[in-house]
Amino acid sequence: MANEVTLLDFWPSPFGMRARIALSLKGIEYEYKEENLLEKSPLLLKMNPVHKKIPVLIHNGKSICESLIMVQYIDEVWNDKSPLLPKDPYARAVARFWADFVDKKVYVSGKRIRITKGEEQEAAKKEFIESLKLLENELGDMPYFGGEILGYLDVVLVPFYSWFYTYETYGKFKAECPKLVAWAKRCMENESVSKSLPEQERVYGFDLKLKKVYGIE
Amino acid sequence: MANEVTLLDFWPSPFGMRARIALSLKGIEYEYKEENLLEKSPLLLKMNPVHKKIPVLIHNGKSICESLIMVQYIDEVWNDKSPLLPKDPYARAVARFWADFVDKKVYVSGKRIRITKGEEQEAAKKEFIESLKLLENELGDMPYFGGEILGYLDVVLVPFYSWFYTYETYGKFKAECPKLVAWAKRCMENESVSKSLPEQERVYGFDLKLKKVYGIE
Repeated sequence: MANEVTLLDFWPSPFGMRARIALSLKGIEYEYKEENLLEKSPLLLKMNPVHKKIPVLIHNGKSICESLIMVQYIDEVWNDKSPLLPKDPYARAVARFWADFVDKKVYVSGKRIRITKGEEQEAAKKEFIESLKLLENELGDMPYFGGEILGYLDVVLVPFYSWFYTYETYGKFKAECPKLVAWAKRCMENESVSKSLPEQERVYGFDLKLKKVYGIE
Repeated sequence: MANEVTLLDFWPSPFGMRARIALSLKGIEYEYKEENLLEKSPLLLKMNPVHKKIPVLIHNGKSICESLIMVQYIDEVWNDKSPLLPKDPYARAVARFWADFVDKKVYVSGKRIRITKGEEQEAAKKEFIESLKLLENELGDMPYFGGEILGYLDVVLVPFYSWFYTYETYGKFKAECPKLVAWAKRCMENESVSKSLPEQERVYGFDLKLKKVYGIE
């Protein structure tokens, strides 16, 4: 059976970027469909009726939702190239733990930097920086979280690099994480990453418009 | 190498119950250590320095945190008995999707039923019931979410059955989900489940005390 693969996505989504990077690393050809989140397509509503969110991967007519699950699915189905999760159960648990941490801490505190002000924003900045420091510590002296190669956690975390300028501009701060920035730049040398991530300034421009739509200043 | 397994846990935790059920289904002997969450042990703080939460599984000196990840770890390490996740990548993605849904919807709306009042509580009850209905629909005519046997999603969801009485008493409602209740009772016929779940009234008694400690009425 031929592999028919479609990705329903929205270009500034860090979750969508994860799917794009994983599909590219595995060398999978797919159809990219850009969604308009203010007017979601019937296909998106049909394929993700529970959360109604992008990204959605459609593989031979079946949908896979939630980016962390999607990247694991891609890794399990196309297991002949660019392994993402390690083989060892403990190393897998560690990669999954930090991936979960990225969603619970980095994404959430980053969002709070964007949409809050004053004390709440200060608390969010503190949590954001602390989270990055913990990730720097986890990286240690390895080139990638996957060791010598790009792995699961690299794919999960690196999309947020395209949002760094947005967070820092809103929060009027500079996240001092030289090792993590060096790691992100190293990831960007990989074409699967660089072509999946939009430019930081473009993301910021998008987010400024988004805030106007929702009346947040 | 002998398997030394310790579980840091707290008896009313639905997340801890997941670990207890999985360990029991796999026939793993382990040391159970009850934590006092008002005065966390140095071992807990050392073994889960990021979140400082139970449950923590310690296997030959290494810690595994976050219950969804822990159950997958247990399934991968002790893979000779009671398989939890299916082999097929798509079926695995579906099980993981609903497990994630349980954490994002069932747990969160259940918690909001407990700690809010008025309109907010009504909205939480609505979301809670809608979530259970979606899960009933997913179960369909199967005896278990794992099909003919207890699987990953069964282990993930069934602990909340021990909290049903608490949710319903606080919310002054009855969740009309006969198929899901029948499923929970079927799960409770399995000794690994029944011995891992405390009685519903005991959970309610605990939660009443907890609310006093935190000054919630």
